Amino acid sequence: MTTQGSIEWKPFPAPGRRLRLGFVGGGRGAFIGEVHARGAKLSNRWDVVAGALSSDPEVARQSGADWMLAPDRVYTSYAEMAEREAERPDGIDAVAITTPNNSHHAIAVAFLDQGIDVICEKPITTNLDDALDLVERQRKTGLVFGVTHTYAAHAMVRQAREMVAAGELGRIRQVHVEYAQEWAMPPPSPDRKGAFWRIDPKQVGPAFSTADVGTHAHHLACFVTGMEMTKLRAELHVCGAPKPLDDTAFMHVRFEDDVPGTLWVSQAAAGTYCALRLRVFGERAGLEWDQEEPGLLHFNRLGEPPQTIVRGVGAGVGNSARRLIRMPRGHLEGSIDAWANIYTEFAVAVEARRDGRTIDEGLLDYPTVEDGARGVKFVEAAVESHRAGGAWTDCRLSL
Amino acid sequence: MTTQGSIEWKPFPAPGRRLRLGFVGGGRGAFIGEVHARGAKLSNRWDVVAGALSSDPEVARQSGADWMLAPDRVYTSYAEMAEREAERPDGIDAVAITTPNNSHHAIAVAFLDQGIDVICEKPITTNLDDALDLVERQRKTGLVFGVTHTYAAHAMVRQAREMVAAGELGRIRQVHVEYAQEWAMPPPSPDRKGAFWRIDPKQVGPAFSTADVGTHAHHLACFVTGMEMTKLRAELHVCGAPKPLDDTAFMHVRFEDDVPGTLWVSQAAAGTYCALRLRVFGERAGLEWDQEEPGLLHFNRLGEPPQTIVRGVGAGVGNSARRLIRMPRGHLEGSIDAWANIYTEFAVAVEARRDGRTIDEGLLDYPTVEDGARGVKFVEAAVESHRAGGAWTDCRLSL
Amino acid sequence: MTTQGSIEWKPFPAPGRRLRLGFVGGGRGAFIGEVHARGAKLSNRWDVVAGALSSDPEVARQSGADWMLAPDRVYTSYAEMAEREAERPDGIDAVAITTPNNSHHAIAVAFLDQGIDVICEKPITTNLDDALDLVERQRKTGLVFGVTHTYAAHAMVRQAREMVAAGELGRIRQVHVEYAQEWAMPPPSPDRKGAFWRIDPKQVGPAFSTADVGTHAHHLACFVTGMEMTKLRAELHVCGAPKPLDDTAFMHVRFEDDVPGTLWVSQAAAGTYCALRLRVFGERAGLEWDQEEPGLLHFNRLGEPPQTIVRGVGAGVGNSARRLIRMPRGHLEGSIDAWANIYTEFAVAVEARRDGRTIDEGLLDYPTVEDGARGVKFVEAAVESHRAGGAWTDCRLSL
Amino acid sequence: MTTQGSIEWKPFPAPGRRLRLGFVGGGRGAFIGEVHARGAKLSNRWDVVAGALSSDPEVARQSGADWMLAPDRVYTSYAEMAEREAERPDGIDAVAITTPNNSHHAIAVAFLDQGIDVICEKPITTNLDDALDLVERQRKTGLVFGVTHTYAAHAMVRQAREMVAAGELGRIRQVHVEYAQEWAMPPPSPDRKGAFWRIDPKQVGPAFSTADVGTHAHHLACFVTGMEMTKLRAELHVCGAPKPLDDTAFMHVRFEDDVPGTLWVSQAAAGTYCALRLRVFGERAGLEWDQEEPGLLHFNRLGEPPQTIVRGVGAGVGNSARRLIRMPRGHLEGSIDAWANIYTEFAVAVEARRDGRTIDEGLLDYPTVEDGARGVKFVEAAVESHRAGGAWTDCRLSL
Repeated sequence: MTTQGSIEWKPFPAPGRRLRLGFVGGGRGAFIGEVHARGAKLSNRWDVVAGALSSDPEVARQSGADWMLAPDRVYTSYAEMAEREAERPDGIDAVAITTPNNSHHAIAVAFLDQGIDVICEKPITTNLDDALDLVERQRKTGLVFGVTHTYAAHAMVRQAREMVAAGELGRIRQVHVEYAQEWAMPPPSPDRKGAFWRIDPKQVGPAFSTADVGTHAHHLACFVTGMEMTKLRAELHVCGAPKPLDDTAFMHVRFEDDVPGTLWVSQAAAGTYCALRLRVFGERAGLEWDQEEPGLLHFNRLGEPPQTIVRGVGAGVGNSARRLIRMPRGHLEGSIDAWANIYTEFAVAVEARRDGRTIDEGLLDYPTVEDGARGVKFVEAAVESHRAGGAWTDCRLSL
Repeated sequence: MTTQGSIEWKPFPAPGRRLRLGFVGGGRGAFIGEVHARGAKLSNRWDVVAGALSSDPEVARQSGADWMLAPDRVYTSYAEMAEREAERPDGIDAVAITTPNNSHHAIAVAFLDQGIDVICEKPITTNLDDALDLVERQRKTGLVFGVTHTYAAHAMVRQAREMVAAGELGRIRQVHVEYAQEWAMPPPSPDRKGAFWRIDPKQVGPAFSTADVGTHAHHLACFVTGMEMTKLRAELHVCGAPKPLDDTAFMHVRFEDDVPGTLWVSQAAAGTYCALRLRVFGERAGLEWDQEEPGLLHFNRLGEPPQTIVRGVGAGVGNSARRLIRMPRGHLEGSIDAWANIYTEFAVAVEARRDGRTIDEGLLDYPTVEDGARGVKFVEAAVESHRAGGAWTDCRLSL
Repeated sequence: MTTQGSIEWKPFPAPGRRLRLGFVGGGRGAFIGEVHARGAKLSNRWDVVAGALSSDPEVARQSGADWMLAPDRVYTSYAEMAEREAERPDGIDAVAITTPNNSHHAIAVAFLDQGIDVICEKPITTNLDDALDLVERQRKTGLVFGVTHTYAAHAMVRQAREMVAAGELGRIRQVHVEYAQEWAMPPPSPDRKGAFWRIDPKQVGPAFSTADVGTHAHHLACFVTGMEMTKLRAELHVCGAPKPLDDTAFMHVRFEDDVPGTLWVSQAAAGTYCALRLRVFGERAGLEWDQEEPGLLHFNRLGEPPQTIVRGVGAGVGNSARRLIRMPRGHLEGSIDAWANIYTEFAVAVEARRDGRTIDEGLLDYPTVEDGARGVKFVEAAVESHRAGGAWTDCRLSL
Repeated sequence: MTTQGSIEWKPFPAPGRRLRLGFVGGGRGAFIGEVHARGAKLSNRWDVVAGALSSDPEVARQSGADWMLAPDRVYTSYAEMAEREAERPDGIDAVAITTPNNSHHAIAVAFLDQGIDVICEKPITTNLDDALDLVERQRKTGLVFGVTHTYAAHAMVRQAREMVAAGELGRIRQVHVEYAQEWAMPPPSPDRKGAFWRIDPKQVGPAFSTADVGTHAHHLACFVTGMEMTKLRAELHVCGAPKPLDDTAFMHVRFEDDVPGTLWVSQAAAGTYCALRLRVFGERAGLEWDQEEPGLLHFNRLGEPPQTIVRGVGAGVGNSARRLIRMPRGHLEGSIDAWANIYTEFAVAVEARRDGRTIDEGLLDYPTVEDGARGVKFVEAAVESHRAGGAWTDCRLSL
């Protein structure tokens, strides 16, 4: 009835050992670093052993203690960390980069140069040149470079992707994606430290919401449909408290084969939290996924009653989702489970690379440095389109 | 806590008599005529007594029998009907026009010329000249001319409008409206007679979905926010079976004060039925209304738990909604109730006009011929914008 | 996939004429009488032409004017009304009895004696003897006697019944029904006239909620499962403001074949409106219907994704539901539509009886006087069980 | 408006060190052991370092490798594990007991005897004598003894408990709790190993569902209302595949002050997964919590619009919930987050006990051995009531 069984069942290989993970960023007052760390722990594949959690020595020390790192592995400089960890026999296998956007490139380069695999927050850089440089470095080194478009690691997003790929929807005819939040409606305040740097052009580049949540929306739509976004016309707005960058963007877009779509992102929409929602309409069926109910996939065939495919083994759930399932149906997997999923996939990739093993095609589906670069291209195209009065602007990235 | 009590409670005046309603259109095989008739009956203000239900004599006769009309009031020509009914002492008070769009203008003129009030399906005409002509004729005659943007007659749409007007949301910052259906995904078939004329440019003018469901979306957004839509940039698409007109449209729009918004309509979105949904985001709160759950109004103040205002007396429901409520909370009012609401308002207006009485300001809030003309302007602007490659196009209508 | 097509499609016969309906009860300040009248009008099968709307002459006169009845058909005595209407050549075809419970029997007798068909509110009487007397009288006369368990006239309740009958759930294993409201939490107040008589033992008999909403829950569970309830053990409680009768009841019940179930009713459950919900679990599937979302039927087969069968033509909707559908999927049918459905079925039955025609088996499925008597037996059994400390008490009625 | 601020904000103390956790049970093929382990890891307070994961040496060895335990800390006997770990300077701080029910008592005794804190699956024993023995031993030793009624560790369950305690609902008038699953509808099969022992009277005692999910429902209702359940009358049923114990139970219950309630549990209800739902109705408001949407608390005040309190900081969320929140509103916390919460609380208690510190009253709210014993009493009372034909049976446990 659905795709279960259409792909041979193959779980991830069991871990050979616990991998060692280091962090740049994530000190006291930061938010996303701890989320990475908890996801890594929940994956049961990683130990967090080192960190340049802050450039302020006292904050670094305290944060290192919070994280229970050995004092000699608490750094105040990522450069020093990269060097020293590369030298240690028990040095980190990978680094997670969770700093403001404008520092990602330099940090990533430092670790790639030492042969250390990289897991990087999105957007991977604040301009396309830097992003392409990272693509080139990853290609030269063959190192693992993952990007945390974590929403795509929810089991039911994989299910959606598998169903589209299996032709369950027929040819895709239109795609709508949106991501709405409310937190940038009021001005930033001291208890939300991240609210300051996220709207600072120096730290995030030419866009706020288009980059912060827009890249997630862009990635999700492309990931599920299996199609690249080819062009867009964008308007950027400030709908919340005054700020130097957009907090809202409206776009008309095209995917491959000229499939039309829309994209709306806002961080100034009162009453919304993390309302990332994707709707894909095909010739024979439509589907809808909502990040705030991540375990449900709404699937509607023309002429049949609507179905809700519920995360869990069986009952229409295919193999690409099943690989990621830990809890039985009815016990919800939430955001941290998606983080555990993506860190599981990173671990499988990192362990295989370090052991010189090949991974079966299709087993892993995490976002790569290329996906990260496509996100940066998307941001730049949106800003360019906006500046040109909403002109159609190419956003495809040939890599 | 909400707006209840902010406006003095005033119900509609009790009917002095049952009004007489005639129909043009609505014969066997038609759909919307019967819906009008049932709404009128449910309002308990109208008797349906005459009809030019079809131009085919046999169909007219059978349909008249179905409707239990007296044989001498079953017509095959609207012109004849207008004349004869105007002569009868018990002639119709108003006519409901439920024919394909291209005939609305001539029919309306025929009845207005006879001094008969008009209730007309949307869009009221297939071009702006005709629409402006109807506006002018209505103004000259002072007759009632209502347009059945019936969704706006749901009690909780009135509640939303009242809350916006009362400033509950603060200044409006963005508006998103959409209306998705699936029925035009497959090609028209004989069992769906309406599917043929709705996509025929001769009968509907330059647009299908933009006119058919787009005008509803346009009206609803303007009605709730109390703002006119000023300009738009549109793309029209065919996402379903091939057809000569759009079945899908994407728009970026502006309302007064340059408030930005989006509008998406499609009748080729598999898995959607009548998914008309409005989201309005203001400085202090956001609201959402979904036509498929018409008795609920989602209202979210920044920093407070989300509320669901449920149709019924008390519990946050204001006077403009309360006037329209017949069933206690928990017993749903559906689509036919909205039809009864709009026919109640038409009746109050018609009875007052015929009796030479004035209606208190703010008591009635039904769509008028001006609203109808604005809808036609919206359609023309969308088509023009699309033809100009999505250029910003003025859609404001100064009346 | 579901039952569509399992039963040959057969619509209701078209009406030969508009039937004439009279009312006892329903004067100013009453609630349910008007609901009956609107349902009858919406069915397009009835004209409301006479009424003993109140025993107070002035209220009767005013109410008659509200209802636009001819003055000579406004009565202050139901007995006089029965007599006079029976004499008129254009006398009523049926009477709707919408008075407090203790008067139902005498009124019904008066009209049955005159050969007039009866539509009666539930519970039909305040004691079983009276109910059995009505059963006997109906049998003797062969008159139509319908009871307004109107919830069972929602299209998707018919769908549920058809699916159970078709074996879609396999053998039924457990049944849970509940009906919760909040309005009897506070004490009655002058603006809720009905709140006084509904809790007065003289007017309603030995139970309040068990009779008022309990009989609906009892009927719905039996109707959908196709099984009679055989025994029960009940506790009656007062959970809201002090009152002489129960406002809450908990029951463990058995249906035929010893199928176990529970029944909970309360009119003192803060935050609930008309929360009538039925859940039926069978060997192969379960279903759930909620009166506040009447157009949806949740249907869950073991090992398959959950389905939502949505009211409308096709997409899994069977014939017994389809007969009752007027609005396309996506345009909600609410409570008044269920009233129109039940009044349509009454009309078909009344017209056939008066014309001496037979109705095909299975075409009509409205609640009869026997169903009404079973409701009274249910109430008496619940009270008896409660008084016996919750002893198992037979509630089957052999008729 | 709600309880935020009613209790002084106090977070959990930061961990002084990572605690060491051992497991009995949880080897390959088991389910719940791994869930415990992942919850402990996610809490970031525990390292899993030892285990008697199976009594079969080969399974123990493989499972130990899966868990990445040091080989010398992989045991095949819990008795040996208790002894050896007690001797080690780096021995475990606490043991998690995740074996079938009939072994809990002996295992708990073995570790308590060695001064090791205990975290035990529910029900803690298969008979009341054993449960009372554990209570006594815990009291004598002063050791921490937690029981994993983990649902009560969801942030919004704490919110509900705080709101009831703060009087937001007024006096409680009725309570309804239910927990429905479908997995015991078909017979056990080899791929669901746990399905065999769970229905084996030797391993689980006198009840299956009443103990397995019933104790959760019992605990949740008592926990949120702050009231002990005092008596019950129960019927036990087999609604799914034949089995030696109940898979379904219906109960009428009483809480303190004679507050009435109902409890329904079933593991043979097709279409339900982990449908644990609590509804509490008070004089002034009602609330509802559903385990499958754990981040939402539905709160309805009489005469006000329904509210949905959404997990996250601010917007009506009180301190007892806030302490447990890691993810911002809109990023769901699911089941594993509740496990992390309960393991956080266990850790705070264990660390304080080992360090000789006192914990502020009200800071911790995890289920204790007394709660575990009350669950066993509940099971025994239900079985006794059922055997006595549903007689009222005392289920209060004076401790």
